[in-house]
Amino acid sequence: MVEVYFAAGADLWPRYRDALEAAFVEAGLKVTLRDSAPDPAKIDYIVFSPGGEISDFGPFVNCKAVLNLWAGVEKIVGNRTLTQPLCRMVDPAMTEGMVEWVVGHVMRHHLGIDRHVLVQDGVWRHDTSIPPIARERPVTVLGLGALGKACGQALAALNFPVAGWSRSPKEVPGLRCLSGGDGLEEALRGAQIVVTLLPLTRQTENLINAVRLELLAPGAVLINPGRGPLIDDAALIAALDHGRLGHATLDVFREEPLPPSHPFWTHSKVTVTPHIASETRASTASRVIAENVRRGEAGEAFLYLVDREQGY
Amino acid sequence: MVEVYFAAGADLWPRYRDALEAAFVEAGLKVTLRDSAPDPAKIDYIVFSPGGEISDFGPFVNCKAVLNLWAGVEKIVGNRTLTQPLCRMVDPAMTEGMVEWVVGHVMRHHLGIDRHVLVQDGVWRHDTSIPPIARERPVTVLGLGALGKACGQALAALNFPVAGWSRSPKEVPGLRCLSGGDGLEEALRGAQIVVTLLPLTRQTENLINAVRLELLAPGAVLINPGRGPLIDDAALIAALDHGRLGHATLDVFREEPLPPSHPFWTHSKVTVTPHIASETRASTASRVIAENVRRGEAGEAFLYLVDREQGY
Repeated sequence: MVEVYFAAGADLWPRYRDALEAAFVEAGLKVTLRDSAPDPAKIDYIVFSPGGEISDFGPFVNCKAVLNLWAGVEKIVGNRTLTQPLCRMVDPAMTEGMVEWVVGHVMRHHLGIDRHVLVQDGVWRHDTSIPPIARERPVTVLGLGALGKACGQALAALNFPVAGWSRSPKEVPGLRCLSGGDGLEEALRGAQIVVTLLPLTRQTENLINAVRLELLAPGAVLINPGRGPLIDDAALIAALDHGRLGHATLDVFREEPLPPSHPFWTHSKVTVTPHIASETRASTASRVIAENVRRGEAGEAFLYLVDREQGY
Repeated sequence: MVEVYFAAGADLWPRYRDALEAAFVEAGLKVTLRDSAPDPAKIDYIVFSPGGEISDFGPFVNCKAVLNLWAGVEKIVGNRTLTQPLCRMVDPAMTEGMVEWVVGHVMRHHLGIDRHVLVQDGVWRHDTSIPPIARERPVTVLGLGALGKACGQALAALNFPVAGWSRSPKEVPGLRCLSGGDGLEEALRGAQIVVTLLPLTRQTENLINAVRLELLAPGAVLINPGRGPLIDDAALIAALDHGRLGHATLDVFREEPLPPSHPFWTHSKVTVTPHIASETRASTASRVIAENVRRGEAGEAFLYLVDREQGY
């Protein structure tokens, strides 16, 4: 019997318990899964996330691997008591989830769905409710990494004319690809929906500022599932207040959780979602965990093993 | 000179007049287009929509075809005076608009977007807001005509496992295709989102009844951009009230405009949209009309000829 200790926190336990059990069965493994470790020496594998209960990995003398639930390991990689192999999570569902969130919110704004969700007053507004078709709605995606590329291509497949921008030149089939400073201006000019999926660097902080917001089509919509500081919050609120911008749907913020007093919460043209656009999913992540346990038991190399010197 | 009578109503005439003239010229046809028919025997083709001015097709003794402006022909197909060939409309822009509406509302329910649109109360609900990914969300599309097929394939491209049902067997790449009575039960069993895109016939009226609603996954969502009478309204409301069904988003109704007093308007689990899912666009639809006139004049088979026995 393989002993697996779920040390990723009580919050996640209800969500992961069944998913992990199912994944172990699917992988043909006989596993005892527990959310406690009365006898650390008996533990074969630890499922971990920062915020979980272990800070000293020393007592887990027979542990064959620590399996991190998230892609980022920056909070655990420096722990000196951790001598066991450490694996990070690469969850295919994370990219899929991002594409779905972006497509969902682009379609929501494209179709003007909010008016129907918010107003059901018995008035049949046929003529004023018909949206244009997607081929008449220019969309711009800032950032052409794995996520931006996948989102841009999914939107192009739905017939939106999609411009994609990246700092250095890239080519993505189906997208009009632009790069550099002039390219950014061209990508934003006249865009009706803008999706920001850039990494946060010194160059991208406050990239969406007052000057660049002026380039968008009147009434444009900004959708940010990337990083909070990409946007100059005050410039965004001013553009919404002046009617320059139609709406902003934001999933990420400078401070998370977004404080209850932040003006984004109460602004009628802002939709806050609580950093849910992309997330490790219990079912797919559990399969990755189970596969690594299977590999460990079979003496095979682990997937996504962290290089402790590189730090990822 | 080919005589075409626009009998689709005074409302539509201003929108279609120029578009049709242009399409006839583009097709190389010499056409006299009028919105009246002082001498019915002289008319070669009728452009029709229910709500237009003809109820007796008898006097149009030389009419080679009645060209319907909409996809649905249920209001005209039973007219006994109609002995001329009847063609329904398959407008490429209509299909695109339908795909966009369906994808938008499926994603809306899949992601649980409404809770964010309706509730912005400063509470950061991260854990309870994460949706599953599309591959874990079985979707069923009832009807595999041009619209159902296109919608099903667009949803499959977004990774939803899509079952498609049609009365007679069909094969659509990417969809698990089912047919007949047993197939219908299988298509509905466990579905989390159901999209109804069937034509309205005696067989499909009230197809979505209490018994079939019981087959769906608990909390399932029904999306109807097809025809109002496909659904037993009372059974739907009962299933929503008992918590069996999670939501219904309805674009079509037995009576349109939906009367202000109808319970759908005020039901918290129903979203009414005012028959906007798919709208024939004048420019593209006019080209389909012109192509059928060209075919008629050349003695070729009409496009989208209605099978009068099947009713669509």
